[in-house]
Amino acid sequence: MQLIKGTLIPIGGNEDKGIEDSELYSLEFIDNGILFHVVKEAGGVDAKIIVIPTASSIPVEVGESYTDAFKSLGCKNIHILDIRNREDSEKQSSIDLIKSANCIMFSGGNQSKITDKIGGTTIHDIILERYKNEKGFVVAGTSAGAMAMANEMIAGGSPKEAFIKGAVKMYKGLNLIPELIIDTHFIRRGRFGRQSEAVAKFPNLIGIGLAEDTGMIIKKGSVCTIIGSGMAIIFDGNTLTHNNEKLLNEGTPMTMANLTVHVLSNGDQINIKTRQIKVLPIESPFV
Amino acid sequence: MQLIKGTLIPIGGNEDKGIEDSELYSLEFIDNGILFHVVKEAGGVDAKIIVIPTASSIPVEVGESYTDAFKSLGCKNIHILDIRNREDSEKQSSIDLIKSANCIMFSGGNQSKITDKIGGTTIHDIILERYKNEKGFVVAGTSAGAMAMANEMIAGGSPKEAFIKGAVKMYKGLNLIPELIIDTHFIRRGRFGRQSEAVAKFPNLIGIGLAEDTGMIIKKGSVCTIIGSGMAIIFDGNTLTHNNEKLLNEGTPMTMANLTVHVLSNGDQINIKTRQIKVLPIESPFV
Repeated sequence: MQLIKGTLIPIGGNEDKGIEDSELYSLEFIDNGILFHVVKEAGGVDAKIIVIPTASSIPVEVGESYTDAFKSLGCKNIHILDIRNREDSEKQSSIDLIKSANCIMFSGGNQSKITDKIGGTTIHDIILERYKNEKGFVVAGTSAGAMAMANEMIAGGSPKEAFIKGAVKMYKGLNLIPELIIDTHFIRRGRFGRQSEAVAKFPNLIGIGLAEDTGMIIKKGSVCTIIGSGMAIIFDGNTLTHNNEKLLNEGTPMTMANLTVHVLSNGDQINIKTRQIKVLPIESPFV
Repeated sequence: MQLIKGTLIPIGGNEDKGIEDSELYSLEFIDNGILFHVVKEAGGVDAKIIVIPTASSIPVEVGESYTDAFKSLGCKNIHILDIRNREDSEKQSSIDLIKSANCIMFSGGNQSKITDKIGGTTIHDIILERYKNEKGFVVAGTSAGAMAMANEMIAGGSPKEAFIKGAVKMYKGLNLIPELIIDTHFIRRGRFGRQSEAVAKFPNLIGIGLAEDTGMIIKKGSVCTIIGSGMAIIFDGNTLTHNNEKLLNEGTPMTMANLTVHVLSNGDQINIKTRQIKVLPIESPFV
């Protein structure tokens, strides 16, 4: 297996509190604590950061919001790459930006827009290639931007219909970390059920539910360290002794026995290859 | 250990959809499918059924609603015991009703009202005594009425602050089934987090999260069979390898490694003494 050299930082997302209900039209509130890690991993304040607000329905505003947030951390080399269609993903100017970036930052919104407009294009290939081969190259993403990092991507699903087969919709993501299924806004939007169903569909993968203001720094394609103020809920389907997902008709309640769940917080680690947990001693400082 | 002879039927609850948000003031929509099991376990349509609407803020309406529901199933011997204070729980008329009942049905509302007004009173003692010693004696409860069956009772807790120590409030319940921590309205209200925290507090107990329109028939104080159209989520803390709940300050995110979770549906069983799961074959008819 090829050793991944780049760094992946999926982030759970955290919107402006006044308009929390709408994922598509909300301006994200980006916590400096987590963005600080993104900047640090990308090489510091001189890093060239490319913000891709494609998932958002208000890409201009979201782009400005990220620019302001990165500027407040001292960054000067920030660019918005506002991909609106697949042709934009093939433009030489887009390719040049992606080739020269130290960090790609995908905004929140609708994850299917990311895969529709970028998946399989030249810039997608370059991102994958650089992530695999270049130490210090960072791909970060908030909310939809985090979910799109998986290969089996959660595209939608009502939390109210959780654990009913067919409640979760899965599409193909950007395949940066095929071992994971990533969900975000995990606590406040009650998304345990749809992640459980996703893991039942793909029991060899690990389901990750990132809480608001919580992220993971993933190195070597395997070692995940939790950052931020909340928790990452990990669903490991390897221990399942019963899982009838494949047999059920759509709309039928599921049965799953012996799903292993971890609740991890700041500084804790999971190795997604060995599935081992490393818990930070309680007296340790905040990461 | 004494063998329990009575039957316990906690039910996840399911309110009239128009006013779903308020637990205290909503008229419960009681599904006939689940009530049918309650009536059957109590001996059929001639069973003497006592409805206790004490948890509700609209006890008269809730009492009428249950009366109508039981009548629609053919029951004729239905009584409302509208306990409003501890004195009501000591009245001879209340004691006589509890002594002569085949089935006690606790309504939803606020579970703390049940324990405040009934816990430790004479009728509580009689219910416990009859549940332990009388085959065919049924104690059923919807929502708050189900949660109050535990000894370590979830009294409240915001789903939005889940996995932060202190987010769940625990009080003492009616102690009918001390091995369990029971939560209800589990899927639609996103209560995974507060149940996880409750299990972290009491890792030797089993956490049960009942979905809407889902219940369990518990016999011999141990064998639980899932009834209804949804799921019961089971949290088994026995496998935890790391749990920092006892060490953390209030307001701190928790870490729990290797929590075992089961998602069970109609006809599946868990034995809460042996912690073994028995899954209904997929071709089996609905229970």
